[in-house]
Amino acid sequence: MSYLLIIECLAVVASAIYGVLLAARKGMDVVGVFSVAFAVAFGGGTLRDLFLDRTPLFWIGNPHYPIIVFGIALFSGVILRFIRHIKPLLLLPDSLGMALFCLTGIGYAMEAGTNPFVAVLLGVITGTFGGVLGDVICNEEPSLFKPSPLNATCAFAGGWVYLGLLQIEVPGEVATIVGIAVIVAFRLAAVKWNWSFPAIREPRNPT
Amino acid sequence: MSYLLIIECLAVVASAIYGVLLAARKGMDVVGVFSVAFAVAFGGGTLRDLFLDRTPLFWIGNPHYPIIVFGIALFSGVILRFIRHIKPLLLLPDSLGMALFCLTGIGYAMEAGTNPFVAVLLGVITGTFGGVLGDVICNEEPSLFKPSPLNATCAFAGGWVYLGLLQIEVPGEVATIVGIAVIVAFRLAAVKWNWSFPAIREPRNPT
Amino acid sequence: MSYLLIIECLAVVASAIYGVLLAARKGMDVVGVFSVAFAVAFGGGTLRDLFLDRTPLFWIGNPHYPIIVFGIALFSGVILRFIRHIKPLLLLPDSLGMALFCLTGIGYAMEAGTNPFVAVLLGVITGTFGGVLGDVICNEEPSLFKPSPLNATCAFAGGWVYLGLLQIEVPGEVATIVGIAVIVAFRLAAVKWNWSFPAIREPRNPT
Repeated sequence: MSYLLIIECLAVVASAIYGVLLAARKGMDVVGVFSVAFAVAFGGGTLRDLFLDRTPLFWIGNPHYPIIVFGIALFSGVILRFIRHIKPLLLLPDSLGMALFCLTGIGYAMEAGTNPFVAVLLGVITGTFGGVLGDVICNEEPSLFKPSPLNATCAFAGGWVYLGLLQIEVPGEVATIVGIAVIVAFRLAAVKWNWSFPAIREPRNPT
Repeated sequence: MSYLLIIECLAVVASAIYGVLLAARKGMDVVGVFSVAFAVAFGGGTLRDLFLDRTPLFWIGNPHYPIIVFGIALFSGVILRFIRHIKPLLLLPDSLGMALFCLTGIGYAMEAGTNPFVAVLLGVITGTFGGVLGDVICNEEPSLFKPSPLNATCAFAGGWVYLGLLQIEVPGEVATIVGIAVIVAFRLAAVKWNWSFPAIREPRNPT
Repeated sequence: MSYLLIIECLAVVASAIYGVLLAARKGMDVVGVFSVAFAVAFGGGTLRDLFLDRTPLFWIGNPHYPIIVFGIALFSGVILRFIRHIKPLLLLPDSLGMALFCLTGIGYAMEAGTNPFVAVLLGVITGTFGGVLGDVICNEEPSLFKPSPLNATCAFAGGWVYLGLLQIEVPGEVATIVGIAVIVAFRLAAVKWNWSFPAIREPRNPT
């Protein structure tokens, strides 16, 4: 399944851009910007590779990945001077990076022969962990665990769509593109219309 | 040592129940509840498997574990509506999960041929890391590192009791039950009578 | 390259001393002090070994390392009663532990045949991750991600010096000593004169 490599490369680029924007918004210096970009771009895939015992890690076996991230971090210093509002730019690379990494997680897990439920979980972990790391480094409360933005839910739903399409023997490339479109569209819609689940139980004052 | 598998399965159930209660108290939605249950139930054992280079990870090789945790998280939505006070329910599954996971850590470490001191440390890490992750996700200060509840100390002491019994050739099943009883009893006593160690050095104002 | 083992042992001792001082300043008890010392001394090297798929982990394969850290944590209880101001004592073991661990990361990465850029990144991760963990456990904002102290930059620069010297066939021992000296001197200078990089982009109020 060599198209997974293309997906992974795009995932690294999208996540690195998201990480750079996140760190720049916080007023970090170039080292901080690179650190956040690196953590966001490689955090999820590193967990995936460790959990599936894939060696070498994808960014050690493909050493051009860290160099691409380094280049994006350096280059952003020039571009970012001309950008006034970063916040509206965050959503697209975030959603895209999550969707792309989610599918690489599912793809490699299926290649390793895991159960489909476990494969989808690994996809969700691969897709979301980078963003969690980025939030933690930027000292934000990780948005994954806040009720609103349905990050994990989008990845979970899109992952099942992708697996279902593969099951009915749709070609991998098509299943991938549909899976990514479902995740990104679901996420944009969830943010736009502010979708959320209800609390499983209202927290009461004397808990 | 196949009884370790039974211990592990019970550890997953106890930890998942603890994770669900912890997340429900915080008013999380069903995705949050599952995430916390998953992190508490699999965090410690995942570190153990990575540190001992055991593959596949226990929740990838036993895919019914994540499905059990998923079921507990869904089912809890019904049960939790009838429960008024969650806090008093937290202590028992927490202590039990910690004790059970601690012994799996020691057992697998000994199987891998580690030094006994390292085996006990791995037991403590396996027993406590899930709870730390759960606290971090719920945005609480991890109670492991606060002076009072003696979590790690109980696991450490019970671990040595377990290893000592194995050394004098008590059967593994008996040693396991005694080890678990020691950890749980020690922990309940430590919480009830508020045992703690003194600070190693009083923090002074001009440090 | 057996001199890497000596470097690693010194790195464990320096990092454990730093961890003990850090935890004692916070008024932790003996278990907290050992936990922080353990996390600082083994955090970075554990990530390094996981990322490079080295087994067993260095503190499992060398079980005297955790025993040394345990001894330092116990012994510190006596020494620390006679010490009034901990803060000025923190910088040297911190810098030294970072420098030593950084070089072990680069050395083992090169042995594993990674690309030089990846090797330096692994050195920086190995050198700094223990300190980040210690800060997180002590509930401090990790100083690595704050603009001022240039931790990662010092490790990055010293790492390239070390690799450059190896490239021109300077003996490993000499390259190591020069690399450590560069990292420690750079770090002490950065703290003393408060060096820092500018923010990549001023954070504006309406971001």
